[in-house]
Amino acid sequence: MDTTHARRWDGLVVNARLATLADDTGYGAIEDGALAWQDGLITYAGPASGLTAAPDALACEVVDAGGHWITPGLVDCHTHLVFGGDRAGEFERRLQGASYEDIARAGGGIVSTVRATRAADEGALFAQSLPRARALMADGVTTVEIKSGYGLDLDGERRMLRVARRIGRELGVQVRTTFLGAHALPPEYAGRADAYIDAVCEWLPRLHGEGLVDAVDAFCERIGFDAAQTRRVFEAARTLGLPVKLHADQLSDGDGAALVAEFGGLSADHVEHTSIDGVRAMARAGTVAVLLPGAFHVLRETRLPPLDAFREHGVSMAVATDCNPGTSPLQSLRLAMSLACTHFRLTPEEALRGATVHGAGALGLPDRGRLQAGLRADFVLWDIGQPAELAYWLGGGLRIGSWSGGRRLPD
Amino acid sequence: MDTTHARRWDGLVVNARLATLADDTGYGAIEDGALAWQDGLITYAGPASGLTAAPDALACEVVDAGGHWITPGLVDCHTHLVFGGDRAGEFERRLQGASYEDIARAGGGIVSTVRATRAADEGALFAQSLPRARALMADGVTTVEIKSGYGLDLDGERRMLRVARRIGRELGVQVRTTFLGAHALPPEYAGRADAYIDAVCEWLPRLHGEGLVDAVDAFCERIGFDAAQTRRVFEAARTLGLPVKLHADQLSDGDGAALVAEFGGLSADHVEHTSIDGVRAMARAGTVAVLLPGAFHVLRETRLPPLDAFREHGVSMAVATDCNPGTSPLQSLRLAMSLACTHFRLTPEEALRGATVHGAGALGLPDRGRLQAGLRADFVLWDIGQPAELAYWLGGGLRIGSWSGGRRLPD
Ligand SMILES: [Zn+2]
Ligand SMILES: [Zn+2]
Repeated sequence: MDTTHARRWDGLVVNARLATLADDTGYGAIEDGALAWQDGLITYAGPASGLTAAPDALACEVVDAGGHWITPGLVDCHTHLVFGGDRAGEFERRLQGASYEDIARAGGGIVSTVRATRAADEGALFAQSLPRARALMADGVTTVEIKSGYGLDLDGERRMLRVARRIGRELGVQVRTTFLGAHALPPEYAGRADAYIDAVCEWLPRLHGEGLVDAVDAFCERIGFDAAQTRRVFEAARTLGLPVKLHADQLSDGDGAALVAEFGGLSADHVEHTSIDGVRAMARAGTVAVLLPGAFHVLRETRLPPLDAFREHGVSMAVATDCNPGTSPLQSLRLAMSLACTHFRLTPEEALRGATVHGAGALGLPDRGRLQAGLRADFVLWDIGQPAELAYWLGGGLRIGSWSGGRRLPD
Repeated sequence: MDTTHARRWDGLVVNARLATLADDTGYGAIEDGALAWQDGLITYAGPASGLTAAPDALACEVVDAGGHWITPGLVDCHTHLVFGGDRAGEFERRLQGASYEDIARAGGGIVSTVRATRAADEGALFAQSLPRARALMADGVTTVEIKSGYGLDLDGERRMLRVARRIGRELGVQVRTTFLGAHALPPEYAGRADAYIDAVCEWLPRLHGEGLVDAVDAFCERIGFDAAQTRRVFEAARTLGLPVKLHADQLSDGDGAALVAEFGGLSADHVEHTSIDGVRAMARAGTVAVLLPGAFHVLRETRLPPLDAFREHGVSMAVATDCNPGTSPLQSLRLAMSLACTHFRLTPEEALRGATVHGAGALGLPDRGRLQAGLRADFVLWDIGQPAELAYWLGGGLRIGSWSGGRRLPD
């Protein structure tokens, strides 16, 4: 009897190559690596030579990775994947020459998504959103953030958040919910944005009381809400001890990055127009820059986020899909990584960090995103020869399998 | 006994919505449609109300499409998906700041793919290429063109073409092979391009004699082969009765489109720099313009193909992946359709035609690409609410199933 192991580990992968991301630079690559877990947490991530006994003696379940690569489970830290309907018709009309005005007149734009989301009951909304969550998981996501923001009334927002939670329960993916009541002004509040913000600040504690809210977000933009309104939402969040994040400086510099940093926010998202002062404020507050190259691509933007300034000031950069029906109908975080490399010239390593450890940072989850003892056993096994392939291939089925908390997710 | 049907159809899909593409514009949409086949060919594609008896009486196998959409099977008419190695390392070094010169000095570029392809035996080359073919099929491809061009010697070119044929046999996808010996000058012929073209013209009849060549292609560009050399390859093809196509006018206007049109070519591919005279020549010859938005995207090109001129002159536009390790590591034809819409402003309908009927045209295959009686029963069932979704979503698993010649392909 092996007395050094009163209890064997739950699981152990051998014959693996690990991209641990354990340090702040480099993949933290380990050839001929092994990864073990116990009670959902990593207990060992290192060279196989560091194992103290034969694999079978060490763990109940031993997986042979066949020499393939293991990365941390991908973290998609910014999605709007719960919604009713789609906007493919609008996409088509735009390409046929219709202007944004034509489309708005025809009832298109975000209003049409709000209408379809309000019209869908919880079962319908779940059924419509499920394939998108599955698609993200098929490309390696093990943690996904899902925002509300297409209900824009208490019932609709609640329904979205409940569906988000249900996706987590039924698919085994880790879900973090974000209340985004301040996404857009619903038609019934036209001309009364301050009154709508009153309502949002009233819904928040109720939804939080129902266990539906992990963080709070707003859309701070000339076509969204102004700084004073955003501030009121953030104050309501602070009262409840909820972390904040912000759709900031996407189309213009509205000092959104500085505002969310002032509240110690988890992340400022989009940030194409963020000023150097905004970058400095983010650096001081430890606010993560969430890059959303899908929207940049679809909108054919040309203004790049201040990437070098983020690097110089040590602002972490996450990469996310922004999966949404209007500006980023993107269902693959690997594809977001590829777009980040092509459009933003991120390196594949930066893209992978952005979709793992920094994505986790943008969600306030220091318990994942690297392969290190003590962190969650969330990892993905990939059919690749080197980590750069994850951002290199456009499409392709590279994933062999995903594990969340040491449990293999169904395919 | 139903005497009007001496023999029942092999198969029939009911409760389907059809995008037949039967006419020259519009999706040719049929709500509550039915699609039947016999001996691999479509025998009926139209409204269910046109059926003369109950489905079970009409066909041996009846499929309920659940109200989902059916399109023609997708045709990827330009790929280089058989190759050894990959170029992810080069992609990474480029993003880390290395110049093309640095990479060439380090043995990178196409030369590295030639080296890896030559080093791989037939089994290894097949194993490496298989996942790419599978990925294309997973997104709806039922016919794929595969070029040689990384062997650049008789054995290497033969091995690539044999692997292409084997992919067709083993996966059930329809494969068309294209001999692209004139892809690049191999190192051993440095400074002797004309001698290399001699060799290419000598290999062609041998490979054709082995049943390995369906068409002939060349890379006509300042960094490729010149017009006189291309012409010699085309003449060798003409002698054998083989159709030609050409990598034309991608980086500069080399009159490639006019040249391939002069030979009655099936297609001119890339064509970003094609002149109006080239467009006119293509129109006269019925040469298809094959748009390759993947390479445009990866290379961050800005010069658009003369799309309006193609439309005005009635030049058909196909869309293909150009799946290759250097400039277009793209493994999804749907994603190519999306890139064609975003970068080239094609409509989703043009993108779908480009990936079906016009892709078939670029391969000289008038027997597929539409849902019409008499054509091959190649079709795909999609989980979408409208055909525009095929080009709208970036990623996502939309395909329910594919049929080739009436046979359902394994998933
Ligand atoms: Zn967003
Ligand atoms: Zn090509």
